[in-house]
Amino acid sequence: MNQLPAGPEEKKIHEVHSAWIDAANAGDLARLLTLMADDAVFLNPGQAPVGREGFSAKFSTAHQNLRISCRSDLEEVVVIGEVAYAQSRDTLSVTPRAGGAAAHLAGHRLAIYRKQPGGRWLLARDANTLSPAEQ
Amino acid sequence: MNQLPAGPEEKKIHEVHSAWIDAANAGDLARLLTLMADDAVFLNPGQAPVGREGFSAKFSTAHQNLRISCRSDLEEVVVIGEVAYAQSRDTLSVTPRAGGAAAHLAGHRLAIYRKQPGGRWLLARDANTLSPAEQ
Repeated sequence: MNQLPAGPEEKKIHEVHSAWIDAANAGDLARLLTLMADDAVFLNPGQAPVGREGFSAKFSTAHQNLRISCRSDLEEVVVIGEVAYAQSRDTLSVTPRAGGAAAHLAGHRLAIYRKQPGGRWLLARDANTLSPAEQ
Repeated sequence: MNQLPAGPEEKKIHEVHSAWIDAANAGDLARLLTLMADDAVFLNPGQAPVGREGFSAKFSTAHQNLRISCRSDLEEVVVIGEVAYAQSRDTLSVTPRAGGAAAHLAGHRLAIYRKQPGGRWLLARDANTLSPAEQ
């Protein structure tokens, strides 16, 4: 279920969310880094929190070893002044480049965005609940 | 690592966070319901999102069947106007009341609070990454 943007700021959150997923699927780390705040933090089940550097290392290693296909449907976007939060339903398929069966993960994600002085929104905090799923 | 509150609003978030953990450990669902917003949503790995009603049902069933001990250390509180977000490191031990070994979970949690007209802060969104952990 995709939520339609309610106003111009909500629309910007939808856009940065879409840009994020497109870049993630394209393996475009440089683009992802332009979409996150300097102090961004990512929380994942079974792993320590990571910031920009930890995210970059994990993302690069993952894309070297795996073909990654992510889908993320926004279910809610709430904008309050300079802060926004968004909930999405995510599914992730990862296939070893060396061959082997794909693994499927599914879960929800809670993301917090901060509005920058120029009006852009950047991802600031991100917690996902991805866990193994039947395909 | 517990973060010290930076100002009066941050202090209120620390207080509602402590009150939440105390009530959770006491099995006090009525108290928890006074600490969450009407539209609160909780995200957990491997489970569908739940609101107040779903949370209540899960919490009651869990406390009937399990002894639950939760610890949560706030690592960050950020207040921006009427919104706040907080990151904590959580550990959870659950022991079947019928007997049997305790299970241990650990992870991080991202919570969003909304300031109410009277000045109180209520938990609005909560995503945890709890996963099985060695004790």
